[in-house]
Amino acid sequence: MKVTIKDIAREANVSTSTVSLVLNNKPCRVSDKTRKLIFDIAKKNQYRVNLAARSLVTRERKVIGLIVPDIENLFFSSLSKKIEEYCLGKGYLLIIVNSNDKENNDVKLLDMLVSFGVDGVLLTPSNESLLNGVKLKNYLKKMSIPFVLIDRYFEDLKTNRVYFDNEDGADQAISILVEKGHKKIGCISGGKRSKNGYSRVIGYKKALIKNNLPFSEEYIYDGNYRFDGGYEAGNSILKTDLTAVFICNDMMTLGFIRSMQEHGKKIPRDISIVSYDNTINYFLPWIEICSVEQNTEELAISSCQCLFSILEGKNNKLHAIRLRPKLIVKNSIKSFL
Amino acid sequence: MKVTIKDIAREANVSTSTVSLVLNNKPCRVSDKTRKLIFDIAKKNQYRVNLAARSLVTRERKVIGLIVPDIENLFFSSLSKKIEEYCLGKGYLLIIVNSNDKENNDVKLLDMLVSFGVDGVLLTPSNESLLNGVKLKNYLKKMSIPFVLIDRYFEDLKTNRVYFDNEDGADQAISILVEKGHKKIGCISGGKRSKNGYSRVIGYKKALIKNNLPFSEEYIYDGNYRFDGGYEAGNSILKTDLTAVFICNDMMTLGFIRSMQEHGKKIPRDISIVSYDNTINYFLPWIEICSVEQNTEELAISSCQCLFSILEGKNNKLHAIRLRPKLIVKNSIKSFL
Repeated sequence: MKVTIKDIAREANVSTSTVSLVLNNKPCRVSDKTRKLIFDIAKKNQYRVNLAARSLVTRERKVIGLIVPDIENLFFSSLSKKIEEYCLGKGYLLIIVNSNDKENNDVKLLDMLVSFGVDGVLLTPSNESLLNGVKLKNYLKKMSIPFVLIDRYFEDLKTNRVYFDNEDGADQAISILVEKGHKKIGCISGGKRSKNGYSRVIGYKKALIKNNLPFSEEYIYDGNYRFDGGYEAGNSILKTDLTAVFICNDMMTLGFIRSMQEHGKKIPRDISIVSYDNTINYFLPWIEICSVEQNTEELAISSCQCLFSILEGKNNKLHAIRLRPKLIVKNSIKSFL
Repeated sequence: MKVTIKDIAREANVSTSTVSLVLNNKPCRVSDKTRKLIFDIAKKNQYRVNLAARSLVTRERKVIGLIVPDIENLFFSSLSKKIEEYCLGKGYLLIIVNSNDKENNDVKLLDMLVSFGVDGVLLTPSNESLLNGVKLKNYLKKMSIPFVLIDRYFEDLKTNRVYFDNEDGADQAISILVEKGHKKIGCISGGKRSKNGYSRVIGYKKALIKNNLPFSEEYIYDGNYRFDGGYEAGNSILKTDLTAVFICNDMMTLGFIRSMQEHGKKIPRDISIVSYDNTINYFLPWIEICSVEQNTEELAISSCQCLFSILEGKNNKLHAIRLRPKLIVKNSIKSFL
């Protein structure tokens, strides 16, 4: 039989409200001995506080929920921290959940946040959702609380969104290589696994065409966004006459550098590169890599401003905010001029 | 006047249960038009779902809460991800919150998790709490749900805990330097800002004494756990006759390497180092750094096993699990033998 607060109160010889206050960690004038007695009785009887009922009485807090696809990825951990700072400044707490880039988790976690009663949600959908996305899209269509998609969004779903323009980033990368006189420029991509990543490849193609440079599918190497993929692409590129490579993320760039080093090749003496993310220069004391930066602080602030303007009822229009990434120029490009 | 579900139902000409289902994102046979109407009326009247009441009816989910001091720190983001994987495997969702290493946040976030009704909590207390810790300790003494302290704990509070032995890690670092014939070994510390970090300095001292090597306070440089601190300590150490340095975290090691590079010094030719964390070898294609590793997967698994054994009622004993860090031997040490 399930034990109730009344049973515990009777056994401890205190009032039910005392039991309730103690078990809910609320201020209550009671001796440590009585407190312990109440806990012991509750424990002995495997009493479980009715937690949702508890949140009914204690809910005075304001909370935002954030769903990210990979908390271990530097971009998202930095973004999370900056969002948390903004929310705290507004008097809101932030809870972060990690979807592991799985659509099922997107929906489960979103449902959990809604049922916890968060005031609003910031969400970077998983790549799985972006590719197949029926479940998540259906859920989002029926969302009863304000939400903003960040960094990734559905083309065919009108939602508030804040994101970086990936084609623009690629265009900036190719432009500086062209300015320095490069004509044969390759690309290490991550394939079509990520919509954002693939937009960089599209930007690369468009930029070559715009600059009347030769383009060939053979110039594109699939590095799978990983160190090993960048390393293997590097080994292959050494056998070509490419003078420069646009690499779609920093992790592949690290692999690429390792390959060059093993072959006694130097950057930019033997080959020029522009990377994406600008997260690794801190770790590379011997070399500086020109890279396209997506400023996480800018993304965090814009996303929060967007969400809070809805929460505060300031704006009922749909927000679609496109941010420009920024090329950080460093000495990883040889000049042919 | 506050609008109720009844008011919305009347205006939309549907039942109150339909309104409730729609606003709570629950399955409900209703046309998109009616759905929109309900949302519009709710919005117009600034109706706010009684969220806690909602969680009362929807609570079927099992959830663990995790509090970390710095989600941007690689150690904690990796730990978070591994804990999340374990919890998912057990059918639990994980919510992560970031305390920014502030005691006030520790208490606020813990209180939020409890009032959300999580089933258990994993907590790395802020360094502020560890130093001053009255508020957090008082809260923990009264916790009504299972919790485990991870990585950091209070010496004077009997709680379930899983942590790495930092003195042991330092001892392993000094031992390998001694084995290779080093006699004058310095230390770049982070001062007393962190209890774990300071334990490494204590371990360094003890290891020198154990090995009958000279110890002097002058051999210890405060690098503040930062890149800049490691860089400045490097500049100072170059003027001494130290042949090896034990550096208490990887970030300071990166700064130290930069200093050596600027002075044309090579590791290990000119100076030997052992670092702590083992997170940077991936980023350093030119050099490999011997480092003490605290395996986040091991910490995640042990912490979760500890928490779930309590949740599942398997064990009522107090758990105090000390893990051994592991020295990862790499070629950053010159041998004098």
